[in-house]
Amino acid sequence: MEFSSKLIEDAVREFSRLPGIGQKTALRLVLFLLKTEPSRVDDLANTMTKMRREIRFCVECHNISDGEVCAICANPGRNRQQLCIVESIRDVIAIENTKHYSGRYHVLGGILSPLDGIGPEQLNLTDLADRIRNSGITEIIMAISPTIEGDTTVFYISKLLKDIPVTITTIARGISFGGDLEYADEMTLAKSIAKRLPVENYVNIR
Amino acid sequence: MEFSSKLIEDAVREFSRLPGIGQKTALRLVLFLLKTEPSRVDDLANTMTKMRREIRFCVECHNISDGEVCAICANPGRNRQQLCIVESIRDVIAIENTKHYSGRYHVLGGILSPLDGIGPEQLNLTDLADRIRNSGITEIIMAISPTIEGDTTVFYISKLLKDIPVTITTIARGISFGGDLEYADEMTLAKSIAKRLPVENYVNIR
Repeated sequence: MEFSSKLIEDAVREFSRLPGIGQKTALRLVLFLLKTEPSRVDDLANTMTKMRREIRFCVECHNISDGEVCAICANPGRNRQQLCIVESIRDVIAIENTKHYSGRYHVLGGILSPLDGIGPEQLNLTDLADRIRNSGITEIIMAISPTIEGDTTVFYISKLLKDIPVTITTIARGISFGGDLEYADEMTLAKSIAKRLPVENYVNIR
Repeated sequence: MEFSSKLIEDAVREFSRLPGIGQKTALRLVLFLLKTEPSRVDDLANTMTKMRREIRFCVECHNISDGEVCAICANPGRNRQQLCIVESIRDVIAIENTKHYSGRYHVLGGILSPLDGIGPEQLNLTDLADRIRNSGITEIIMAISPTIEGDTTVFYISKLLKDIPVTITTIARGISFGGDLEYADEMTLAKSIAKRLPVENYVNIR
């Protein structure tokens, strides 16, 4: 695309480097910014650079944080006996939004994937065993996606923690609420029959 | 959504003000920026503010411009006898990308829409007649969307220019290349039959 303006061309190029944003969307964003107050554009730019420069990772759980320890780890109201192990920051946000978990987290920063060169050294695992031993945690919840890599990671971590007296659980797998049996994959449907629940439980969950 | 970080929250809020970007996409962009080099994030922010602060509008055609006169108006290689009247900067970019027009433009900055409070005063029309009289233009091409508002605008401008000896044309309307007759609307199909072309012309167009 040609824009007859170097300024626009540069801005479109920068925007189209963002994920999921092609040249057309980038142009739309740029033309929107052109109609916006200059001070509002400055706000967007400043918030972005400030966020990138000042963000830190929590020394306890490796979640993103404004200070040394994140708001979740620092919150005395949270259950200190439960620890939820997740792949990424995004998963923490997803679980927090359910408002049904009150324990703390441990963010791995990835899952084991030898083909992509991601081994145990690339994940935040070195401090995990010590953290669990020294902080009175009694239950580890593995909230990791049910894929081959995810299952490998769950298996690896459960072996890593086998000498520590904690209960290790994984999130339930089955048919989604509102999901359609007809369109569920065979593996999920088979597992959801094998792990069937008494009706009383079902009513409680709902 | 809760992010347990003020920095992230602010960045997501700023991003989700952009058109077509909701909270989930904003979060994806923010998490992408978190993984990017800080200097690259600075580049994006600086390009954005520079663009907004330095962009100008061409004094001749009202297109966006890096200087007083835009690259298209300043280009001596362009046909000075043709003037294409368009609604917006976006239309200039779309027509330029076809590489089939070598004249110059006049950007209205909108189309007449009394219901939205857009009358002739809100458009770049005051200098249009003078511009056409004084610059040897012989043909005006109205490249304006074929909507009620667009047609009103075309009609208004053609009345405005009725005393000036120029040919006024509008872009052809008909079935798109690759389009399907079955799905074309009745109005377009009816017009494309009424304005049918000799086969020789058809071959030339293609």
